[in-house]
Amino acid sequence: MKIIEGGVTAAAGFEAAGVEADIKYKNRKDMSLIYSRVPCRAAGVFTGNVVKAAPVLWDREVVAHSPYAQAVVVNAGIANACTGKQGYECCRQTAQKAAQELDIPEDAVLVASTGVIGWQLPVDRIMAGVEKLVRAKSDTPEAGQDAVEAMMTTDTVPKQAAVQIEVGGKTVTVGGMCKGSGMIHPDMSTMLGFITTDLAISRELLQEALSEDVVDTFNMISVDGDTSTNDTLVVLANGLAGNPEITEKNADYDKFREALGYINMTLAKKMAGDGEGATALFETKVIHAATKQEARRLSKSVICSSLTKAMICGHDANVGRIMCALGYAGVDFDPEQVDIFCESDGNRMQICKGGMLTDYDEAEATKILSAAEVRVLVDMHRGEAEAVAWGCDLTYDYVKINADYRS
Amino acid sequence: MKIIEGGVTAAAGFEAAGVEADIKYKNRKDMSLIYSRVPCRAAGVFTGNVVKAAPVLWDREVVAHSPYAQAVVVNAGIANACTGKQGYECCRQTAQKAAQELDIPEDAVLVASTGVIGWQLPVDRIMAGVEKLVRAKSDTPEAGQDAVEAMMTTDTVPKQAAVQIEVGGKTVTVGGMCKGSGMIHPDMSTMLGFITTDLAISRELLQEALSEDVVDTFNMISVDGDTSTNDTLVVLANGLAGNPEITEKNADYDKFREALGYINMTLAKKMAGDGEGATALFETKVIHAATKQEARRLSKSVICSSLTKAMICGHDANVGRIMCALGYAGVDFDPEQVDIFCESDGNRMQICKGGMLTDYDEAEATKILSAAEVRVLVDMHRGEAEAVAWGCDLTYDYVKINADYRS
Repeated sequence: MKIIEGGVTAAAGFEAAGVEADIKYKNRKDMSLIYSRVPCRAAGVFTGNVVKAAPVLWDREVVAHSPYAQAVVVNAGIANACTGKQGYECCRQTAQKAAQELDIPEDAVLVASTGVIGWQLPVDRIMAGVEKLVRAKSDTPEAGQDAVEAMMTTDTVPKQAAVQIEVGGKTVTVGGMCKGSGMIHPDMSTMLGFITTDLAISRELLQEALSEDVVDTFNMISVDGDTSTNDTLVVLANGLAGNPEITEKNADYDKFREALGYINMTLAKKMAGDGEGATALFETKVIHAATKQEARRLSKSVICSSLTKAMICGHDANVGRIMCALGYAGVDFDPEQVDIFCESDGNRMQICKGGMLTDYDEAEATKILSAAEVRVLVDMHRGEAEAVAWGCDLTYDYVKINADYRS
Repeated sequence: MKIIEGGVTAAAGFEAAGVEADIKYKNRKDMSLIYSRVPCRAAGVFTGNVVKAAPVLWDREVVAHSPYAQAVVVNAGIANACTGKQGYECCRQTAQKAAQELDIPEDAVLVASTGVIGWQLPVDRIMAGVEKLVRAKSDTPEAGQDAVEAMMTTDTVPKQAAVQIEVGGKTVTVGGMCKGSGMIHPDMSTMLGFITTDLAISRELLQEALSEDVVDTFNMISVDGDTSTNDTLVVLANGLAGNPEITEKNADYDKFREALGYINMTLAKKMAGDGEGATALFETKVIHAATKQEARRLSKSVICSSLTKAMICGHDANVGRIMCALGYAGVDFDPEQVDIFCESDGNRMQICKGGMLTDYDEAEATKILSAAEVRVLVDMHRGEAEAVAWGCDLTYDYVKINADYRS
């Protein structure tokens, strides 16, 4: 697997665009397009929130029932959630407009929105935005960059990644972009993620690969514990790499899983590290748990705790808060078997042994916890399973950003 | 039921004290004593965290197996959690010392701690503190005030309440005190709560009344979602009111349940409103839910969300965040049936109707959400059950307090 530059336009046949459409923000790009020159197999995973935004309802239909997908239209600023029939109708109109401009079927167009919940989208400006997007679309890296920038909300950096693998003697490219900074919590977050690949693969295996992978990537991050109404992660595969179509779980499938896993994990970590107000990526790895599910629960519980997150903000190795968060994770374990380490930049220090504090050096611990990427390693001494979860610190700026997000 | 002044010394036969013992804090009271002149029936509920502090292990034994209880010794500053055998031994030594000084059995002494996790208690200073407490104890309101002040950590106000009821022609008093501000989340929180009453009641009914009541009072509050290792709520009933002992669920039992419920709810609300860094009590009432459990889940989900909490801090009626939090509560409902109102100081405004925003006045909503006690009312239109949950806003100060709590 070779890591390359780029995002959604890295794979053959994909174009993108990002334009100013004046949806809510002024003087910045706020609508994005992804387009494939040929039809794509599509797979998707969507929010587990009972309150689902209109675009989520639309996309679920497209992924489940359309013969193929060929374009995605995204807007930032307004989430089109809690908008009733009018909101869903807006999705249909957007898809219809894009279909007309791109000369593809209406049911091949996916739509996605992120931003304030409860407001209706300005349909006329969305329509004008679609026209601009279609005129601007291109297969250059710059077009991919425009697309990822146009869907940012409180994100501070655009997030994209791409890799290449060899499948059946052909070079296959997998690229992706995502946005997400607040309302980020597993079960899909207010994250929008789009992966494009020129791989040829059956629809069923594409969906299976995606569904299996998110459990250990996007669903293992949390910024604030709030599961959004709009979470969407879609993979489009257009087959232009020319590899023999993957129709069974063979070595080629495994290669793709590895590439997809890398892209998903990279994007997920970028989202966690760019959490609203965050100054650090906060990783927790749990090893020697009894089961994989237990390892996931324990690691997630640690990165989700307001108190551990504030501790990372303060660079303070407060072992008690980590033990506390492990203790309410819903796993029945013996606290006296737990070892905990903190790590960063290749330095590691044991701060808890057998459930009790070690006699560690506070200054050294503070130094380790002051890095831009810090890791807590928890050894449960119960079995062979492990999991990693990613979050960020809780800062004044998180409160500032969210105390009046709409203004 | 008559609301009166006072706390744990309000009921007949109860004494209290609060003294400076130099456990961790300097120049402030940090150890408390509650003592009953006669043996008490005791009931307790304790943290659901797998990692249980040593005093929780000790107290569970006393409540379950001792013939009676007669004293409680509390310290603030160090939680005596994650302290292994040495920590448990310290509980035994504390109980032994108090038993000796008070001339009561060792297994009639409850102990409780709150503060930093992981540190060992200074046994010599605890012993000296017990001596001071026993010398200082008194049945005055001032002694009760000293006791509640001595167990505060990041609390900004002492929290106590008392009421009187008539049972079998006798006046029965129920009083209580609690502390708690951070690591506050159901399943018992880092809250310590002590209720004293001169009621005569069987041990079984005392425990049942307590266990049933906390579900709708202490377990319905949250400051930060972190369930502490030390949560303890104990009721001591010494029978000195002289009422015929309550041994069945009759009208007298109901009267006591009402009094206990009032004390618990009052203390719980005081804790939520005094959450770390909080500027407002944030109440959410869910009505017309299908079941009581569903109503509890939905109301708790709203007050626990970082995003709704930040919204209260910013006085911003962001309906979407409320809908979002309802949506991930684990209840399967139709979003298009939901109505939401915000209320304070007798003013009410509908901000969501049928799952969609109303055309409400933003300035007026901001005014309503700027009060010291704000309420979100959610009408599910599904059934007849209701529940109330209490939390607080998320502020810069919460982060400040927790980014370096130990220094």
